[in-house]
Amino acid sequence: MSAEVRHSWVDIRNWVHARILDRTYRPGDKLPRDEDIANELGCARSTVQRAMRDLSDAGIVERKRKGGTQVRAHPVTRATLDIPVTRNEVEQRGSVYGYQLLTRVIDEIPLAVMSKFSLRQSKQMLHVEALHLADQRPYILEDRWICTETVPEVMNVDLVEQSANEWLVHNKPYSHCDLRFYAVQADEYTARQLDAPLGSALFVMERTTWINLSPITTVRAITTPGYQLLTQI
Amino acid sequence: MSAEVRHSWVDIRNWVHARILDRTYRPGDKLPRDEDIANELGCARSTVQRAMRDLSDAGIVERKRKGGTQVRAHPVTRATLDIPVTRNEVEQRGSVYGYQLLTRVIDEIPLAVMSKFSLRQSKQMLHVEALHLADQRPYILEDRWICTETVPEVMNVDLVEQSANEWLVHNKPYSHCDLRFYAVQADEYTARQLDAPLGSALFVMERTTWINLSPITTVRAITTPGYQLLTQI
Repeated sequence: MSAEVRHSWVDIRNWVHARILDRTYRPGDKLPRDEDIANELGCARSTVQRAMRDLSDAGIVERKRKGGTQVRAHPVTRATLDIPVTRNEVEQRGSVYGYQLLTRVIDEIPLAVMSKFSLRQSKQMLHVEALHLADQRPYILEDRWICTETVPEVMNVDLVEQSANEWLVHNKPYSHCDLRFYAVQADEYTARQLDAPLGSALFVMERTTWINLSPITTVRAITTPGYQLLTQI
Repeated sequence: MSAEVRHSWVDIRNWVHARILDRTYRPGDKLPRDEDIANELGCARSTVQRAMRDLSDAGIVERKRKGGTQVRAHPVTRATLDIPVTRNEVEQRGSVYGYQLLTRVIDEIPLAVMSKFSLRQSKQMLHVEALHLADQRPYILEDRWICTETVPEVMNVDLVEQSANEWLVHNKPYSHCDLRFYAVQADEYTARQLDAPLGSALFVMERTTWINLSPITTVRAITTPGYQLLTQI
């Protein structure tokens, strides 16, 4: 690159990335110091830092404590995933959103939920099951437990009108979230609700959230056959 | 916060996040200008900028062109996913990694692969199937097509000794990647290879990569029953 033009951090990022793609710098190699790159390319050191942070966020390089940068020796595929509120996801697909409350009952949490929240003994929580629809067809079956100690106000929410998914997102921000993706076979109840063949393979997105150390909710979003979660890098 | 202490960008980030968690600023609200926050808290404007970029990366706020910041009106669950090379993933679990080449043949690509690469007509590519093992048990079945026009040197690689997964990661960086997650039912071949019941629900991670506009590879990593992809926010 010519040092006479003023370079943006995106220019610097692309320049360094191109040197990694063409194998000038190989996995495990140290890159020149930010300062040396800045001097060579005639830009501010902060511009190089911004570029390096972007490459580091993308899993391409690793920044070391003492200021050095290294091409990742064990590269990972690093992707950012956005999981929107289900209503928005359906509407962004151009479909009409629908919602149906199936269950809303205070109940003893099962062992699986105890373990998700790392609780040593069982307690009662609000169990909510609901169906999200796209163009009047089942889209996602929501199976959720809400901790009424952390979120007592949920007892006053009309979950027939508004999904717990939307209410929580807008009223109960979390500080920590565990995400899991996996596949399950449709049991009889799930197959009936999702109008899917018994035993079909269903993709599940599971989220468990806390505010500081208090559990808020754990939810399994069980999708209909054929559902795909996409992202790009 | 006291203006007499020197605040790090993490302090500023936590301070703003706490104001969002306690609903001082609600979804859709505009936050004060970076400069005003900097003046109020007695820190540099660049420190506020760094904090805001972190909150923006996490999907909590949105930065606007003209320098304003807004609490996201339609919040998303934004997560970063790291998918390591399968060998590293198995070894990080404390298991012994194994690998077995099943198929390695030049073949006409099927329609599904044409569509993934947005090709209008079929062509020949290298089809590779391989089994990754953890403690001698099937872990991931890799079903991969490699574009030999873009990567002719793959024809000289001994894929019995080294998986295409590892060879590509270390020798053929990509500039663009499509990622898809979904569930499939085990057909007869897959069930036999993964030693899983016929029809079981399997979680699939699919990646398609390009270097600039040239296709490199498309791969389905079909996991054994019970596999979960985890991340935290």
